[in-house]
Amino acid sequence: MDAVAVLAANQRFYDAFEALDLDLMSDLWEHSDRVACTHPGWPTLRGWGAVASSWFTLFNNGQSLQFIVTNDHAEINGDTAWVTCDENVLGAPGGATVAATNVFVRTRAGWRIVVHHGSSIAS
Amino acid sequence: MDAVAVLAANQRFYDAFEALDLDLMSDLWEHSDRVACTHPGWPTLRGWGAVASSWFTLFNNGQSLQFIVTNDHAEINGDTAWVTCDENVLGAPGGATVAATNVFVRTRAGWRIVVHHGSSIAS
Repeated sequence: MDAVAVLAANQRFYDAFEALDLDLMSDLWEHSDRVACTHPGWPTLRGWGAVASSWFTLFNNGQSLQFIVTNDHAEINGDTAWVTCDENVLGAPGGATVAATNVFVRTRAGWRIVVHHGSSIAS
Repeated sequence: MDAVAVLAANQRFYDAFEALDLDLMSDLWEHSDRVACTHPGWPTLRGWGAVASSWFTLFNNGQSLQFIVTNDHAEINGDTAWVTCDENVLGAPGGATVAATNVFVRTRAGWRIVVHHGSSIAS
């Protein structure tokens, strides 16, 4: 049951990304200093302020991407979970596949993202 | 205290990498199906067998790398921890900086790695 909930939260992350929906993206993250986000090729951003700013920038670039998520696996350890998955990105120049690791923590309001790390797979 | 122990385990990971020490690297990981490893540009490897094989291959290439770890931060959530850090790699062609996320679980024998994800930072 936990794994199903975590994978659903993981999918909502990509739904928010695809819809360029800042409110939904914001709701999915824990708003704290301990969150971290590494976009492909980027240095790691730490803390919700920096992470939120990156989503604002990316979403306001307005590039419409479609994400087909494959190989998604959730593992639970107490109140923490990690998901590994492949982001098959349509709309990027030439298309791309990104390997992603997403870490979630269990809260009273459901699972919240604390880490997103994406890296392009060399073709 | 937990954060100190996790950061020490994180440093041992880079010590093992630098020394090309398979035994030490093996000791640092949980040997289970739930571990995952994403080397820069690689697809994600899942399960200890695949992950161990990748270290065997990398270490037997014999390329000597030196890792200077900076910006390492550990966050603890119950019996799980995640570290973000920068790997400043000397010995790679032209040098490189890799953004890394490492996830650890608490065991009776200490903290063990369950996820390593590294991605090159675009220069």
